[in-house]
Amino acid sequence: MSGETLRVVGQRVRKVDGIELVTGRAKFAGDLVFPGMVYGYAARASVPAARIKGIDVSAAEMSDGVLLALRGGDIPGPNIIGILPPFDQPILATEVIRYVGESIALVVAESREAARRAARLVKADLEPLAPILTIDEALAEGARAIHPKGNVTCANRLVKGDVEQGFAGADVVVEGTYETSHQEHGYLEPEAVCAVPSADGRMTVYASCQSPFHLRGHIAANLGVPASSVRVVQAYTGGSFGGKDDVATEIGSLAAVAARRLDRPVRIAHEREESIIGSNLRHASRIHVATAAKKDGTILARRIRVLLDGGAYASESPFVTVKALVHVAGPYRVPNLLVESTSVYTNKTYSGACRGFGVPQSTFASESNIDELARKLGIDPLALRRKNALKAGDANATGQTYPASVGIVQTIDAIEARRGALPPLPGNDGRWRYGRGVACLLQGISNGAEGVDVVGASVQVSQDGSALVGVGLTDIGQGARTVSAQIVSEILGIPLPRVTVRSVDTDSVHDSGPTVASRNTTVGGQAVKMAAMEVRKSLVGMAARMFKVEGPLVDLRDGFAVLTVDAAARIPLSDVATAAYWTGYPLMNLAFSKAPDASFDHETHQGSVYIAYNYGTHLLDVRVDTRTGAVEVLRHLACHDVGKAINPLGLEGQIEGGSLFGFGLAHLEEVLFRDGRIVNANFADYALPSIKDRLPTEAMTVEDPNPTGPYGAKGVGEPPVAGAAAAFANAVADATGIRFHRLPISRQEILLALKANEGKG
Amino acid sequence: MSGETLRVVGQRVRKVDGIELVTGRAKFAGDLVFPGMVYGYAARASVPAARIKGIDVSAAEMSDGVLLALRGGDIPGPNIIGILPPFDQPILATEVIRYVGESIALVVAESREAARRAARLVKADLEPLAPILTIDEALAEGARAIHPKGNVTCANRLVKGDVEQGFAGADVVVEGTYETSHQEHGYLEPEAVCAVPSADGRMTVYASCQSPFHLRGHIAANLGVPASSVRVVQAYTGGSFGGKDDVATEIGSLAAVAARRLDRPVRIAHEREESIIGSNLRHASRIHVATAAKKDGTILARRIRVLLDGGAYASESPFVTVKALVHVAGPYRVPNLLVESTSVYTNKTYSGACRGFGVPQSTFASESNIDELARKLGIDPLALRRKNALKAGDANATGQTYPASVGIVQTIDAIEARRGALPPLPGNDGRWRYGRGVACLLQGISNGAEGVDVVGASVQVSQDGSALVGVGLTDIGQGARTVSAQIVSEILGIPLPRVTVRSVDTDSVHDSGPTVASRNTTVGGQAVKMAAMEVRKSLVGMAARMFKVEGPLVDLRDGFAVLTVDAAARIPLSDVATAAYWTGYPLMNLAFSKAPDASFDHETHQGSVYIAYNYGTHLLDVRVDTRTGAVEVLRHLACHDVGKAINPLGLEGQIEGGSLFGFGLAHLEEVLFRDGRIVNANFADYALPSIKDRLPTEAMTVEDPNPTGPYGAKGVGEPPVAGAAAAFANAVADATGIRFHRLPISRQEILLALKANEGKG
Repeated sequence: MSGETLRVVGQRVRKVDGIELVTGRAKFAGDLVFPGMVYGYAARASVPAARIKGIDVSAAEMSDGVLLALRGGDIPGPNIIGILPPFDQPILATEVIRYVGESIALVVAESREAARRAARLVKADLEPLAPILTIDEALAEGARAIHPKGNVTCANRLVKGDVEQGFAGADVVVEGTYETSHQEHGYLEPEAVCAVPSADGRMTVYASCQSPFHLRGHIAANLGVPASSVRVVQAYTGGSFGGKDDVATEIGSLAAVAARRLDRPVRIAHEREESIIGSNLRHASRIHVATAAKKDGTILARRIRVLLDGGAYASESPFVTVKALVHVAGPYRVPNLLVESTSVYTNKTYSGACRGFGVPQSTFASESNIDELARKLGIDPLALRRKNALKAGDANATGQTYPASVGIVQTIDAIEARRGALPPLPGNDGRWRYGRGVACLLQGISNGAEGVDVVGASVQVSQDGSALVGVGLTDIGQGARTVSAQIVSEILGIPLPRVTVRSVDTDSVHDSGPTVASRNTTVGGQAVKMAAMEVRKSLVGMAARMFKVEGPLVDLRDGFAVLTVDAAARIPLSDVATAAYWTGYPLMNLAFSKAPDASFDHETHQGSVYIAYNYGTHLLDVRVDTRTGAVEVLRHLACHDVGKAINPLGLEGQIEGGSLFGFGLAHLEEVLFRDGRIVNANFADYALPSIKDRLPTEAMTVEDPNPTGPYGAKGVGEPPVAGAAAAFANAVADATGIRFHRLPISRQEILLALKANEGKG
Repeated sequence: MSGETLRVVGQRVRKVDGIELVTGRAKFAGDLVFPGMVYGYAARASVPAARIKGIDVSAAEMSDGVLLALRGGDIPGPNIIGILPPFDQPILATEVIRYVGESIALVVAESREAARRAARLVKADLEPLAPILTIDEALAEGARAIHPKGNVTCANRLVKGDVEQGFAGADVVVEGTYETSHQEHGYLEPEAVCAVPSADGRMTVYASCQSPFHLRGHIAANLGVPASSVRVVQAYTGGSFGGKDDVATEIGSLAAVAARRLDRPVRIAHEREESIIGSNLRHASRIHVATAAKKDGTILARRIRVLLDGGAYASESPFVTVKALVHVAGPYRVPNLLVESTSVYTNKTYSGACRGFGVPQSTFASESNIDELARKLGIDPLALRRKNALKAGDANATGQTYPASVGIVQTIDAIEARRGALPPLPGNDGRWRYGRGVACLLQGISNGAEGVDVVGASVQVSQDGSALVGVGLTDIGQGARTVSAQIVSEILGIPLPRVTVRSVDTDSVHDSGPTVASRNTTVGGQAVKMAAMEVRKSLVGMAARMFKVEGPLVDLRDGFAVLTVDAAARIPLSDVATAAYWTGYPLMNLAFSKAPDASFDHETHQGSVYIAYNYGTHLLDVRVDTRTGAVEVLRHLACHDVGKAINPLGLEGQIEGGSLFGFGLAHLEEVLFRDGRIVNANFADYALPSIKDRLPTEAMTVEDPNPTGPYGAKGVGEPPVAGAAAAFANAVADATGIRFHRLPISRQEILLALKANEGKG
């Protein structure tokens, strides 16, 4: 790390944990076995709304192999789940049932089969209530209140400029209402935890989870013990996408309470159906957008109303609502802006964090509307976007300006350049309709003003010159370990195979909050960098003493300390580290990284919100099969301003995976409710994209360095979802000439619309 | 912690892990079970010296249930054990056998019984060598070299003043040769480890051990992997006393190699016989002391030669030799001093660290000699010692001076005052002889100039205001966890039940070197204090913001932040910690404590050696049963200058336990060799003190604060051993009129001596 030349950062590196993952050697929480381990299985509500008069577990307790049946009253602590306020959700419902699938008891038995069998014997004495299943029912005058404070989970307003004046001066106004359905995360590994009691009164919970520190806090609270007596260790986590937060606190707490009661290890591992009905979904949305513009395409004002269906409990609705509020106007200069964003309770499986966190829904609505504006004005959709795109120094929706790393124009230019070189799309023929869509987006990186952005990381160099890295944010498949390893390798000159990045262990690093908001590389990487830089001081200091030179003449690279002025003069890092240890230099550092303070006015949501935004432009060519309604993606260009690609290989994987996630949302996936019950809670009926649906995504990057990220990096885990989904919708509209106002734009919807259009035509 | 008043430090506190230990709930390494775990058992040499022509494991491999048999060549790395240079000891002997009990192969089987059975089938093809079994044989002209470099493991000289001149001016010279035998540590729990491979290529070793970082380094080296891929977690350790260092690296490495080969967890747990024959003992010694004095008792010079029998391998002989060198002149002003200290190899079980580390042997020799001087000069033994005792500012044996915390005179004065108030000893009668002995001692605290004194500690406060503490030194029964908990409780105002101190995990703290040299409280406590003080800054800073006052007006106590000017104004620490987290204050700190640099001239051993010494004076009254030779201790006063007693209850336990250790050395214990074979390798034949032998020890403390220790504390784990053993010898001499020159002064030796004396009388 000579300051200018990067040796490891920026290289295409295979995932450091790739081998064990692809060979199946990696042990997930559901694979862990402990002596004497027993199994928990939840009894769940089968109606969407009811008052609980009693829950009878006596038959379950008598069932073969059953050791214990827990009801809500058996939880020593407050019986709550969730990672963020308002904490309105019980682990085991005691008074009211609010969705089908809500846990009402936990049965623990010697085998999972025995527990499952006994769970069916739990009897709930219920007084049914009329379920509230839609946003409209929830907001209806006189509607029954699902929670004591009513059916509005949260409602926020963003006010910038004078929206009335903006509309008054417009040459054209385009408006529409856009809807999206609930989406399931669909990770390969359903939720799982193992709680292992130890004789010293502590409880260790191995969990497939996203936010181990929240988990620790909840487990301790529900056990009624100090947090210091609970340790959470992240097991390999087979995907999370926002889905393993609240539910992990539910099953983690239940397993821990049962383990303490029985003094035996307890595993709870969800089956797919439990995973779908019993953990959060992506919010369904209905978003009304009105855009006022001049003839030349200049946007004057937007008026937007976001309605989110949050299901039975708040989960992360308060934050998703704000995220949508802040993002729905898109990466554009909108001088006059009024956004209202509201989330409501319904008697359905609760919605919460899901990759993109309100931005995919918002982007679909906004970008569909922008496309309609372009069509109305007869302006090229990319040109219209470019005309309005934010530049460094421009005030965004919350009035925040950035001096740098506002790369939306560069991504548009990159896509435009590529577009110019493409052959024209084929003309429509009898069966096939061809179309091209583009979409722009932005996605805030970091918890931002919604929370606090602190991360801890530790770097320890052993006397043999190998490095051990710990960080408080989780690798949930996104490649975070690899990025951490690269940063440490870069700074300490230790070859990658000698850098070990371990999974999160709450005992060992600072509470780093949740692994969300694409902040792992940006905020977490910064902490890793800080810790490594401190250890570097020791190694460089020792090597300088050994070389008898000043520190600045020493560099660390390829496992050696070298003289910058004479690369042939080198000392193995193992010798340097050993000497440093015996001389008393610290070889371990625990760094604490805090992002710059962020805040906004809670009335207008004007203020500094995120440390940075990722910007992107997608272009997507499709052909629509008029016989089947199937849409084939012929070309997909996904260009993101990532600040700096630390591992281009991993980054491309994130863009490809995120885009496919967006494609699923846009074309295939829909959680179907009937009378409040999910009827496709399995992967036969729920159309998750499969390997056959893999998009021909071509990941492109713009590197406009982010001053607040390590080496200029910005996160990229979430943004592609929104870009791909919105571009898909615009491409289908281009191909079919029909504007679809609801996702997914499924085969069936397309066929119906084509048929209806034919009628018109 | 208001600066003046201590609330928790200095209180008599029960061990924080006492309940699980006394109830048997604590899980030791030998109790741990992992799925698929298999068992290792070593085949051992049955002759003390031989050249190995071959080792045949084929029959063992064919035995029922056997999975693997390892020989030295199967170790991927260098096949070495030991925690300190010169690393001359193989894990599995490949060329030469140097002691009976040396491991030559490891058999791993599905059950421990199967492994044990198969280990007997390992056949060694040996060419016998003549064993060298005594110091004299080892040093004899032309003796066979046990190691290539000869039979002298190490030899050191300490030169201060002009010893010839000192002797020339003397009124009286007293000299004698004093010997001690090998001693077994005799911990309740024999050595045990479990090595657990994980799919990510890492290896976790749960070990009953004293120095987890050394263990990690050796296991990694022997596995041939980076240290970062090995994690050592200390299991509850049922005593160590210096005994679980080298051997832990032996069985830890073997278990890890086998676990990697089989990809299954491997446990190796020693039986008592293996523990005695296969791990280090205390060095036997022969020490010649000559003391020159004036008539008034002023010591002018001492000339001392220390010979240590280190057995087959170096282990920690180099350091034990230096420790004896530095300590053997006692806590006295000796202006002219020449000490030679040599350790030799013999074909016996190797000797290494054992509670006191050369000081008990040295103190027995020195204090016996001082007693003889007192008798010769007709001066009261305490008065003679007081006359020569070091004071602050005096140069000690290595020429080092201390400005403070040199409390030997205070301990003598305290003992003298108590003695003055005692009734006179009964007169001898037909069966019983009564006697009183005193002894003074000093014991260096910290690794000192022999190593480097660095310790890492971490303190983490959760949002609920509980604290988790980690430290790099081990609790091996001495109560270290409790001391750490008290320090954190004191500084953060968190009640003790909400402070959790976890066992050492090499992943989580800085390499802290070995847990030796009574340095846990002194050096380790300092690190814990530093880490807690950093977290205190955050809590006080946050509380001050909440109170809207300046930081100095805030104190933390009893689970609250309080205003110093108005104790009624208080905020629960959980509220303060939660607010601090969400405001972005760091709530975890990893401190690195380094003792002041120490060094000496390697020719003369003059220099600064230890950060502090513990000083002590013991008084011991006995009656000797002339019929059986048994010695009954009637009274035992043990007064130590401890700087500051952090937990007086634990400290008294250390003084009582250490004294009993010394009593065993002095009266009961002897490892008996016949033809190089230990013939009493079990607790039926080896006379470990039992509960019935518990001494009537009255622990007394002098608190002369040590500027380098937390709250002025100095360690006390080792010093009482030397004091009790030496005072015992002097008491028996006083009772019988016979000076015994060898420990143990067993019943048999006493009877023989009394008989011989009768003959003379």
